[in-house]
Amino acid sequence: MELKITCIPGDGIGPEIVGEARKVLDKVAKCYGHRIQYTNILMGGASIDVHGIPLTEEAVETAKAADAVLMGSIGGDTTTSPWYKLPPNQRPEAGLLAIRKALNLFANLRPAILYEELAKACPLREEISAHGFDMLIMRELTGGLYFGERKTIEENGIRKATDTLVYDENEIRRIAIKGFDIAKKRRKKVTSVDKANVLDSSRLWRSVVEEVAKDYPEVTLEHMLVDNCAMQLVKDPAQFDVILTENMFGDILSDEASMVTGSIGMLASASLNDTKFGLYEPSHGSAPDIAGKNIANPIATVLSAAMMLRFTFDLDKEADAVEAAVKQVLKEGYRTSDIMSEGCKKVSCTQMGDLLAERI
Amino acid sequence: MELKITCIPGDGIGPEIVGEARKVLDKVAKCYGHRIQYTNILMGGASIDVHGIPLTEEAVETAKAADAVLMGSIGGDTTTSPWYKLPPNQRPEAGLLAIRKALNLFANLRPAILYEELAKACPLREEISAHGFDMLIMRELTGGLYFGERKTIEENGIRKATDTLVYDENEIRRIAIKGFDIAKKRRKKVTSVDKANVLDSSRLWRSVVEEVAKDYPEVTLEHMLVDNCAMQLVKDPAQFDVILTENMFGDILSDEASMVTGSIGMLASASLNDTKFGLYEPSHGSAPDIAGKNIANPIATVLSAAMMLRFTFDLDKEADAVEAAVKQVLKEGYRTSDIMSEGCKKVSCTQMGDLLAERI
Ligand SMILES: CC(C)[C@H](C(=O)O)[C@@H](O)C(=O)O
Ligand SMILES: CC(C)[C@H](C(=O)O)[C@@H](O)C(=O)O
Repeated sequence: MELKITCIPGDGIGPEIVGEARKVLDKVAKCYGHRIQYTNILMGGASIDVHGIPLTEEAVETAKAADAVLMGSIGGDTTTSPWYKLPPNQRPEAGLLAIRKALNLFANLRPAILYEELAKACPLREEISAHGFDMLIMRELTGGLYFGERKTIEENGIRKATDTLVYDENEIRRIAIKGFDIAKKRRKKVTSVDKANVLDSSRLWRSVVEEVAKDYPEVTLEHMLVDNCAMQLVKDPAQFDVILTENMFGDILSDEASMVTGSIGMLASASLNDTKFGLYEPSHGSAPDIAGKNIANPIATVLSAAMMLRFTFDLDKEADAVEAAVKQVLKEGYRTSDIMSEGCKKVSCTQMGDLLAERI
Repeated sequence: MELKITCIPGDGIGPEIVGEARKVLDKVAKCYGHRIQYTNILMGGASIDVHGIPLTEEAVETAKAADAVLMGSIGGDTTTSPWYKLPPNQRPEAGLLAIRKALNLFANLRPAILYEELAKACPLREEISAHGFDMLIMRELTGGLYFGERKTIEENGIRKATDTLVYDENEIRRIAIKGFDIAKKRRKKVTSVDKANVLDSSRLWRSVVEEVAKDYPEVTLEHMLVDNCAMQLVKDPAQFDVILTENMFGDILSDEASMVTGSIGMLASASLNDTKFGLYEPSHGSAPDIAGKNIANPIATVLSAAMMLRFTFDLDKEADAVEAAVKQVLKEGYRTSDIMSEGCKKVSCTQMGDLLAERI
């Protein structure tokens, strides 16, 4: 099979971790007889440095011409980097928001998994983490407060800022369908999170989700208020299978959930549209403080590449092989420094990539 | 001194816990030579049952005529209670939002404290909770998404819902001042939480907070993105002193923080306006499942009454006495069932109230 992949190395540790993910993908291609055609685009700070803006039209076109995008991370230190002297809509993060919108990537899948071998890193007490957990946050990614109208005005000398949270039923329906579809293949439970006791958009969210649920009699639907969900993630994360929620709540809850696993360096994500196209990136950030030191953990990016093989290319066997390789190196005791613990063998970013590629 | 207090027993366990808090207040009055004049008003479901609406004009007037309001909790089971068949703006919670707005209670103070005696209930690993933590969430309470314009319309047969997040600089400034004022009396650190990489309202928030910070050179200000804050609360809650944030973020983060303590039945809150007036209520809900069973934990309400003594009446000595009584009963091993653990003595709601009153 011919795989057309656009890479966004990005900023900070991005180029290093994308490099290791490519190493693993190349090994997969070799073993399973595929051919990968890579293109590279600039985004975020890397694009600002060259083009003055965080994402160019051409970059978007290049991404569109591919089957999938593999991204590292973007952004720098917000207090010291010159990128953050620019107006907000020209900063590195604006590139990420722009590509999500341009490619219509409305469905953001963020698994939060407690790996048995890394259970010690979980910040929760052993009684709570003992049985592990494995949830998937399905976050709406192209609507809500992120993309509603916003303005800052001065009225009688008083500054006033407005953001708008808008959802129409079609935007809610398509993400709900994605959520139920994936729950059907998992433990068959959807927790839809909203603030229906306050927001109109949440009340519409709730009723559309209930309409969609009717087509999935085998999936259990429960509604949870966002404040309660923030509590339940800490109290009993094992209760969740698929969490379905809007953009801003999903931003907050998915980060909370990833920290609850204790090993954010292991967490992949996928952002999908209505076709097989997807953008795949680690859940963690660009970690500018450790960039270029060859100590970053490439596993989240490698696992994002595995999600790409599964969702965009339907290469389940290959995806399984990558995930198995990750489990294998963990079992063998290899750790990058972010997940290092006593008795394990510390390896660099490139060594981890080599170990993973060898095990494919 | 003459204390005019309006009580809102409310729904669920509300009447029981307010009863015990009054018991403690009465003992304080007796010991320290004060006179308390109570009035009662209905709010939430209790008001719907009598008046058909969750809050009447007269109730608001009664509250306004008092020095402070002591509230239990409002709301019922959202799936079984007839209150939730009403349109959203007539449900129990609408009464709470209405009184916050009517009394201009823009500053919501929610302490999240790990009590040494209850450290075992903390869901975090001992390495993280060992040194305890004691933070205060200062949540803006009368602006943002909660009170912006909202509407649901149908356009070409497509339902579309809109909520609006608005802040002007005055709303931000007054809550920031409250935050810095209280930080000055604590560990002198303010963490202002926003989503300035996306929202205009957050960018205005950040600049006004920075302006206010100039008047408090002794207080350290740091900015944190809301998604990162949701992570940090789990990773290292001890890093926080005062968290200053807008309404919706404050709703989510304060609930997360309260669960991180593991003993939400212990957490008080105060909602203040620009005068000494305040509404005091426990951070927890109405727990309809255990209502009327005399097993609720009245401590959060008792500690809310202590906050009232301190903030509205400037009775620091009396507030100290109430807080000392709480520490004392915990030390003596008395526990309501929600915080019960091996080797402790289980007591009912009324017994806990008696024990606390005796120790004043
Ligand atoms: C960088 C930022 C704009 C982005 C978001 O808020 O969506 C990030 O936090 C994420 O979750 O991917
Ligand atoms: C009941 C609800 C409207 C309320 C809120 O969201 O403010 C509650 O969650 C709270 O935090 O006091």
